[in-house]
Amino acid sequence: MAPIVCIGSMAFDSIETPFGKAGKVLGGSANYFSLAASYFTSVRCVSIVGEDYPKEHLELLQNRGVDISGVKLEQGKTFHWAGRYSYDMNTAHTLETCLNVLEKFEANVPAHFQDSEFVFLGNSTPALQMKLLSQIKRPKFIAIDTMNLWIENSRDALIEAISKCHALIINEAEVRQLTQVYNLVQAAKAVRSWGPQILVVKRGEYGAVLFDHGEPFSAPGLPLAEVKDPTGAGDSFAGGFMGYLASAGHYSLSRYELRKAVIYGCVMASHTVQDFGFAELVNVKKDQIQGRYDRFVDLTRFHVE
Amino acid sequence: MAPIVCIGSMAFDSIETPFGKAGKVLGGSANYFSLAASYFTSVRCVSIVGEDYPKEHLELLQNRGVDISGVKLEQGKTFHWAGRYSYDMNTAHTLETCLNVLEKFEANVPAHFQDSEFVFLGNSTPALQMKLLSQIKRPKFIAIDTMNLWIENSRDALIEAISKCHALIINEAEVRQLTQVYNLVQAAKAVRSWGPQILVVKRGEYGAVLFDHGEPFSAPGLPLAEVKDPTGAGDSFAGGFMGYLASAGHYSLSRYELRKAVIYGCVMASHTVQDFGFAELVNVKKDQIQGRYDRFVDLTRFHVE
Repeated sequence: MAPIVCIGSMAFDSIETPFGKAGKVLGGSANYFSLAASYFTSVRCVSIVGEDYPKEHLELLQNRGVDISGVKLEQGKTFHWAGRYSYDMNTAHTLETCLNVLEKFEANVPAHFQDSEFVFLGNSTPALQMKLLSQIKRPKFIAIDTMNLWIENSRDALIEAISKCHALIINEAEVRQLTQVYNLVQAAKAVRSWGPQILVVKRGEYGAVLFDHGEPFSAPGLPLAEVKDPTGAGDSFAGGFMGYLASAGHYSLSRYELRKAVIYGCVMASHTVQDFGFAELVNVKKDQIQGRYDRFVDLTRFHVE
Repeated sequence: MAPIVCIGSMAFDSIETPFGKAGKVLGGSANYFSLAASYFTSVRCVSIVGEDYPKEHLELLQNRGVDISGVKLEQGKTFHWAGRYSYDMNTAHTLETCLNVLEKFEANVPAHFQDSEFVFLGNSTPALQMKLLSQIKRPKFIAIDTMNLWIENSRDALIEAISKCHALIINEAEVRQLTQVYNLVQAAKAVRSWGPQILVVKRGEYGAVLFDHGEPFSAPGLPLAEVKDPTGAGDSFAGGFMGYLASAGHYSLSRYELRKAVIYGCVMASHTVQDFGFAELVNVKKDQIQGRYDRFVDLTRFHVE
């Protein structure tokens, strides 16, 4: 079992969906990733919070095996994001972004994090993602996420960052925007030509597709009777995916291990969307994760003699 | 192996996509359904064409085991549909609809079709669908498709028609519109409360979901490096689905047989979208169908010890 070092945001989120509203719940890519991955392995978190951030939550992370010595407490307010979803919850509409302390984020990695072999570069500027990576001595498996903002404003730097990674984990609309190619099979070829041999395309309620050296793998979304809030689903997916790989210490990634990791990603995302913020994700029991994995086995099984 | 009787349109389609244009290619739900199903079993077709419809095509259907004695040749022009797709090929935008001879369609079923046990009520008015069904003596498995037009104009008659069927095969956006429920799990409950115990939701490039008495089944779309024209994909899906079930004579539908039928539906749809009209579908070889079924097995496999 290898630890994972991750970089990302810790935030207050204000969310509106057709099914309700939540004001200033805890969120941010580092939180969703760390919580999801913490079910599988230990996590080393690099992030930044303001003085208004609740200490109890940092303690909760610690109690779950997340090392928060890379989370800087900075004067000022915590990053705040406000967004809205319509019935089609695959796309978030940003209402407001207040960077606050995130503008001072320097991504300094504590010395005892620097031997981490699994690295997750959560959504932030390509420069910060590269700064984190440069401090890791001998990374063996690096995955990166991004968003439309960096594709639009820093595409060259982003592709440079992606080129140093083993895996790109990204939304469907964003991989199309990034590669400027609509067809996913062809978009995957473009990404792989930059360096990463693994592309995971996240498709919201439709699940995810994995492209690697062989034939693609398609994982469905779990049909749920109630979906309350998709915020954090992508980072929870990444947490399940990386968490599973790191828990088994898989560097030489066999085909089916990668595929199982995608399913564990879908499992963690399916928990996250069932309530606002990470209210559901944080309360999941280990046997529920395995139970839901088994539901994916059943959900996709047809070739039975 | 049981024959299937189907009702639907035969048409000329004019299609625009970002990847090209095709003027007045042969199309219509009865054509796509019959061609796809003809790989699995014999098909009995009830439709109508005008004087401008090519005799060679009717002969081609005959040569493939499609009994066209229910296809009426009427004075006037064949039904014509013109539509456009943008990059998101999951939704067609209708540019023009000329019903032409379709307005005189009476759906009279030849006597020797009336013992058919498998019935496919392709997209047409609920009244015509019911008229066809009323002429079948002892149907054992009835599936129905529809479209937004009938949901908007004839919802009550449509639900009455659906209530007489074993399976509803329908697009994702349309099942939401029909049930007035966004969540698919809940929409499936509504449909099953009307009568049909089987709901198949077609999701374009994302595949299909099957709801029956047990846990749902999710089939992916096949990631293709080139998709030219999605017209007819839904009817080709229905042809593969019904064709497989009828070929095995499955009335008491076991869980995995229904699931395999969904995969054969996806297989036939994946062929159709690779060229304009049914240019590709009509040239598929039987071993290509099995080969593509095997690709679906691989595409979805992850639980390997």
